[in-house]
Amino acid sequence: MSVTGPKGFAAAGVACGIKASGDMDLALVATEDGLPVPAAGVFTANLAAAAPVQVSRAHLQATRGLASAVVLSSGNANAATGEAGTAAAGRMCALVAEGLGQQPESVLVCQTGLIGIPLPMAPVEAGIARLLAARAVSAEAGTAAATAIMTTDTMRKEALVVGDGFTVGAMAKGAAMLAPNMATMLAVLTTDAVAEPGVLAEALRSAVGDSFNRLSVDGCTSTNDTVLVLASGKAAAPTAEALAGALGAACGQLAESMAADAEGATKVAHVIVTGAASDEEAHRAARKVADSLLVKCSVNGADPYWGRVVSELGSAGVAFDLGRVSVAYGDVVVCRGGEAAPHDTAAVAAHMAGRHVEIRCDLGLGRGSGAVLGTDLGHGYIDENRTTS
Amino acid sequence: MSVTGPKGFAAAGVACGIKASGDMDLALVATEDGLPVPAAGVFTANLAAAAPVQVSRAHLQATRGLASAVVLSSGNANAATGEAGTAAAGRMCALVAEGLGQQPESVLVCQTGLIGIPLPMAPVEAGIARLLAARAVSAEAGTAAATAIMTTDTMRKEALVVGDGFTVGAMAKGAAMLAPNMATMLAVLTTDAVAEPGVLAEALRSAVGDSFNRLSVDGCTSTNDTVLVLASGKAAAPTAEALAGALGAACGQLAESMAADAEGATKVAHVIVTGAASDEEAHRAARKVADSLLVKCSVNGADPYWGRVVSELGSAGVAFDLGRVSVAYGDVVVCRGGEAAPHDTAAVAAHMAGRHVEIRCDLGLGRGSGAVLGTDLGHGYIDENRTTS
Repeated sequence: MSVTGPKGFAAAGVACGIKASGDMDLALVATEDGLPVPAAGVFTANLAAAAPVQVSRAHLQATRGLASAVVLSSGNANAATGEAGTAAAGRMCALVAEGLGQQPESVLVCQTGLIGIPLPMAPVEAGIARLLAARAVSAEAGTAAATAIMTTDTMRKEALVVGDGFTVGAMAKGAAMLAPNMATMLAVLTTDAVAEPGVLAEALRSAVGDSFNRLSVDGCTSTNDTVLVLASGKAAAPTAEALAGALGAACGQLAESMAADAEGATKVAHVIVTGAASDEEAHRAARKVADSLLVKCSVNGADPYWGRVVSELGSAGVAFDLGRVSVAYGDVVVCRGGEAAPHDTAAVAAHMAGRHVEIRCDLGLGRGSGAVLGTDLGHGYIDENRTTS
Repeated sequence: MSVTGPKGFAAAGVACGIKASGDMDLALVATEDGLPVPAAGVFTANLAAAAPVQVSRAHLQATRGLASAVVLSSGNANAATGEAGTAAAGRMCALVAEGLGQQPESVLVCQTGLIGIPLPMAPVEAGIARLLAARAVSAEAGTAAATAIMTTDTMRKEALVVGDGFTVGAMAKGAAMLAPNMATMLAVLTTDAVAEPGVLAEALRSAVGDSFNRLSVDGCTSTNDTVLVLASGKAAAPTAEALAGALGAACGQLAESMAADAEGATKVAHVIVTGAASDEEAHRAARKVADSLLVKCSVNGADPYWGRVVSELGSAGVAFDLGRVSVAYGDVVVCRGGEAAPHDTAAVAAHMAGRHVEIRCDLGLGRGSGAVLGTDLGHGYIDENRTTS
């Protein structure tokens, strides 16, 4: 149960032929009755945003936060495809809207895949007709939709969070290192909570900030990154905090699955920074460490070379005093006061050998804290990304 | 002929035992008579700057830009080594100064190697005595010094530029990807030009800005990066422009050798951005492309996937309008107006197969231009960096 878990939603997934493999590549999440409900989105900050991002953003603005469906395709990003690309994304929305008896602006669209290749519209149009026919209110339908958005993900990413009188369901495809040729992160959340568009948008922003924005794979910002939520209003009306908490829990689960499914990676790195001048600086420092190629290589080699961690902290652009810095792997402090600290090397080696590596840094300056979930850098990442063919 | 090329300089290189291999690891560049001459330095911006960086910076301030010698060691960065590290770097200067009959502040120090490991002072002290005895005004002595600062560099890096009535000599060790375990870039330049410390400092800043600062390997800023210049005044007095030009030419040669000697890399990527709103934005955009893991992987795989280039440009934080962007590999335009452009795929494939790949981006907005020299990302980089042992 994922997007069809909350009351009031149907889903579907079909293969239309965008993917040469013949795998499913077209998905739908829609309200059960096709009527628009409160909706919100968070989109990539990339100025080369793909056509679907531009179209979805415009539709949400036109409706002031209402949507009846999301149509998603995988295998082609429809990015850097000019006016034809924008028209194609709009056409996908119009076809789904027609099937639901709604206005085109009530449908949102997400796409993921290679950049710069014209979208083949004939198979997509035929596919949308079958997609509409296939939609159902079942766990199987939700699973089909979650499967149809996978690219090089090795496992489906679904989440279900049961709140106090309401439910949140979610599906996603992985970010960057998980599927680096198609470096997009897509997620669709559904909830049966009663929520006004404004409250929903704020709750989603908060949830994304605490989850996907804390996930760092290769520092690249995709042209297509999109997170959407639709609220059917078929269940209770939670407080804004309860809603944000449940959306955050669902996004957090998806972010963890993304890191765990990092195909090119062999380890997940949890970088935690405390003692910073502010939470913002702690987060920036944690991201610098998590993004560091040298630190990633050390994690890949299970090498507790804290010198690289200190070097990244020192160049993160945050308040920093080497003499106050400590670094620990797991619970074992290896650097204290900016110098090597005597420690149990066997315990550190055991920690580094695991699939989850914790790098805990304390800057010793203030009360700011932050954490970023990263991955190691191994041969697999390069092999995934050397060629697109 | 490198650092001993210009009139008035002696050099030496010896093995003192910091490197377990027994290779040379201690170098000296000094004025022939040991007397202080105008000097300047550019140092890492990393707030975790190593002890030698702190000591050299303080010495140049104390003398207001005079130095009689530079002592350099490789195999241990003397970074994150606390007060003992600072004392050790100061002691190295004092020992050299004593040998030259000068004040400790007239000697500068550079070190490169692993971070966080106490420097073994006994072998260094004994080595400095032999280093002083070995100093000579010969090409061989210059070569010995350039050899003694190598870490995983596979070739010595020396340069000699003959100006109008004066000469610039230089030696360096590679940055990051060349020697990623010892991610430091060190360079020492000598010139027999007559130059005041202030003019020399300005010329060096300009030269570094046009060369080393245009070199991007893995985006990491080392704790030890240092570029120093000493001017003996034994030849002509060039204009400030002529001096900056000659220093820039020497630094440019060294930067090219660093990229060409990238051990973990198989290709050099020249990223050129034109049509930006300003030179600063062009440079920032070029760096974003050159630093991108995804672009680096494409270069490694000789895959002309321009979509990733456009995506990086769109997230570089510069003025950007996708519809105006063009991208070319070498001379072949593959993206025009933000869309795929019909092109000679065989010509692009031939270009990508070479060791030097040019990625030319035009933003179509203004007259700003900039270039960054980068490398690909291959298995070799990871193998170099997985473990320090």
